[in-house]
Amino acid sequence: MRALRYYGPHDLRLEHDVPEPKCLPHQVKVRPSFCGICGSDLHAYLLPTVIPFKDTPHPVTGETWPVTFGHEFSGDVVEVGSEVQGELRVGDRVAVQPTICCNRCPPCKEGYTNCCNSLGFVGLTGWGGGMSDFVSVDAKFAFKLPDNVPSDIGAMVEPLAVAWHAVDQTGIKPGGSALVMGAGPVGLAIIQCLKARQAKEIIVVEIVPERKKFATRFGATAVIDPQEQDVVAKCKELCDGQGPETAFDCAGAAASIKSACLAIRYRGLVVNVAFWEKEVPFQFNNLMFGEKRFCTSISYSAADFRNVVEALGNGLLDVREMITRKTTMDRVVEDGFYALMHEKDKHMKILIEM
Amino acid sequence: MRALRYYGPHDLRLEHDVPEPKCLPHQVKVRPSFCGICGSDLHAYLLPTVIPFKDTPHPVTGETWPVTFGHEFSGDVVEVGSEVQGELRVGDRVAVQPTICCNRCPPCKEGYTNCCNSLGFVGLTGWGGGMSDFVSVDAKFAFKLPDNVPSDIGAMVEPLAVAWHAVDQTGIKPGGSALVMGAGPVGLAIIQCLKARQAKEIIVVEIVPERKKFATRFGATAVIDPQEQDVVAKCKELCDGQGPETAFDCAGAAASIKSACLAIRYRGLVVNVAFWEKEVPFQFNNLMFGEKRFCTSISYSAADFRNVVEALGNGLLDVREMITRKTTMDRVVEDGFYALMHEKDKHMKILIEM
Ligand SMILES: NC(=O)c1ccc[n+]([C@@H]2O[C@H](COP(=O)([O-])OP(=O)(O)OC[C@H]3O[C@@H](n4cnc5c(N)ncnc54)[C@H](O)[C@@H]3O)[C@@H](O)[C@H]2O)c1
Ligand SMILES: NC(=O)c1ccc[n+]([C@@H]2O[C@H](COP(=O)([O-])OP(=O)(O)OC[C@H]3O[C@@H](n4cnc5c(N)ncnc54)[C@H](O)[C@@H]3O)[C@@H](O)[C@H]2O)c1
Ligand SMILES: [Zn+2]
Ligand SMILES: [Zn+2]
Ligand SMILES: [Zn+2]
Ligand SMILES: [Zn+2]
Repeated sequence: MRALRYYGPHDLRLEHDVPEPKCLPHQVKVRPSFCGICGSDLHAYLLPTVIPFKDTPHPVTGETWPVTFGHEFSGDVVEVGSEVQGELRVGDRVAVQPTICCNRCPPCKEGYTNCCNSLGFVGLTGWGGGMSDFVSVDAKFAFKLPDNVPSDIGAMVEPLAVAWHAVDQTGIKPGGSALVMGAGPVGLAIIQCLKARQAKEIIVVEIVPERKKFATRFGATAVIDPQEQDVVAKCKELCDGQGPETAFDCAGAAASIKSACLAIRYRGLVVNVAFWEKEVPFQFNNLMFGEKRFCTSISYSAADFRNVVEALGNGLLDVREMITRKTTMDRVVEDGFYALMHEKDKHMKILIEM
Repeated sequence: MRALRYYGPHDLRLEHDVPEPKCLPHQVKVRPSFCGICGSDLHAYLLPTVIPFKDTPHPVTGETWPVTFGHEFSGDVVEVGSEVQGELRVGDRVAVQPTICCNRCPPCKEGYTNCCNSLGFVGLTGWGGGMSDFVSVDAKFAFKLPDNVPSDIGAMVEPLAVAWHAVDQTGIKPGGSALVMGAGPVGLAIIQCLKARQAKEIIVVEIVPERKKFATRFGATAVIDPQEQDVVAKCKELCDGQGPETAFDCAGAAASIKSACLAIRYRGLVVNVAFWEKEVPFQFNNLMFGEKRFCTSISYSAADFRNVVEALGNGLLDVREMITRKTTMDRVVEDGFYALMHEKDKHMKILIEM
């Protein structure tokens, strides 16, 4: 079968003779229909440190480079393992949760598989990936899509689950207020999730002009360009002089985290969603006055996947316009990575149509 | 009356003709008996930015320099205002909560006076201070000391309330585990409060040899010197391979906050208690993996004062040995500030005996 495989930085190969995976008793075998190209894929393409399994195998999958790419995908069930319980049938359309965890460490045992000491992902650290003709996954990680959720939208469930999980850290209530730093795919997904929770104020900070427009279209109630306005003053003004209750850093820059800390109201919460390329200068007093709180959000749980699929089904989430391009397996570097790097003004989520 | 007044950096004057304060209807007038010399007093003595009210008055007290020093004090009630309800009587020994707040901003209205937008302190921002012969304070901020709590220990209630408040942010349970970065007066007070809550593991990180001994004497179950041992590895080893549930930064250094973040277990909580002199380099990914949380603790509430006084009364807290010197009003700079700066190995809490 075909698979797009990562042999290291700048070495992604579309191979045609990769063996088809078996469908183990607890698995379903899926034929991917759409697969998103993610910033993490791009980072791995550029740097050797994102998938550090050149020689040392991943502790759970035991695999080294090459690994198959693709962790944001939907597909059709083509085989159901002999021991699978529940309602999954051949022909079902599913979104796949790509989580790989050890099931043995304290976080796993206590139900926080997203905090697994050996966390990995289908499509990044072995066990195949969505950028291939077939992939077998644990049946409990395949979520049936409702009839009104098409398969291209199904490939958006994974990034939406990242956002849903982040918003869940806050316990935000209808009428609540939030600040979102950065309107990339993750920031936009968070805006959508905040809207689904009936947040009243959704303030977005972004620099790229087209992304500012995206933010408004997706539900931002105000968009601030930090090059033109004082983010902190504007946030206070928009929220009763106090600032929003909560802020999400989806930009990962010294300036964004500083503004987030200063802009929120007293006892407010900053949720860091971004991964950080390096250390940044930070003044911790910016959280001291007003006893502000800070937490982090990584990955997602099966519950997040279920909630996102349900919210897509009943129209609470709508990410159709986030898909700015569909391309093919042989053009991931040219149509995908290049656009993510150099055409931020044009592209948000690029899908491979398998 | 006598009062030690701050006219700006390096200009502390013991004056003998300061007018005695009136006792307003809602106040009690107190004759201070013991008053602690605090790191904040020292900082104000060295830098103009700690009490930034040279020309612009503090928004609540309306006062500018000079202000009377002393925010950690006990004393005797010498007069009770005409409208004071409750049990306070002339002759009672009290510990004073030095909080000054506006009572009007959202934090104040919602009961978080420690987060007041105009937070101030008796002894730093006006309304007199403990380093004087008399001071009048709101009766609700005077806490009667039990008979078995002598007045010198009464002057320790304020720093203990800082620690009690910080520990309260964590909800730590009997049997819990904690890491304390820095064994100065605040760190030691936190160790005592953790012991009072029956924490099982109290790991302390400190560099100064005599302070390491203090830590052990005060209840640390392990003391780590970061110059000799790998703090993170040792913490994991001491707590089931996972690390402590919570960490308190009472050092305020790039190295201490980094170790605290890396040492705690997944979903653990770092409480920042230190004030930071400047920005430090920080890698936010150190909180990402394991979804670690971070919060801050500033000042205290009346409930913290009540709880500390009660815990001193029933022997849950014992800080007698923290008092390393008693001096007099005319020797605050020589016996107090100099020792805090240059004799960290010898001194912990220095009290003025009035
Ligand atoms: N927590 C998780 O599990 C998880 C999952 C996926 C991605 N991520 C991370 O989330 C982050 C966002 O992902 P993305 O795909 O949306 O990235 P992206 O690069 O497409 O978006 C980031 C956006 O932030 C904007 N930005 C940069 N500096 C800014 C500033 N100072 N103020 C405001 N905006 C600023 C950029 O213009 C850009 O639009 C990345 O760091 C990514 O690694 C986290
Ligand atoms: N949050 C509040 O309301 C509040 C109230 C009072 C004081 N404070 C702050 O709390 C902090 C502690 O106060 P203190 O009076 O105990 O100060 P201190 O200077 O006496 O104690 C700090 C200790 O940390 C140690 N230290 C320095 N670097 C270290 C490192 N890398 N690892 C481990 N230990 C290290 C020092 O040797 C010292 O013993 C100060 O920043 C102070 O301003 C906060
Ligand atoms: Zn992704
Ligand atoms: Zn695990
Ligand atoms: Zn103090
Ligand atoms: Zn106030």
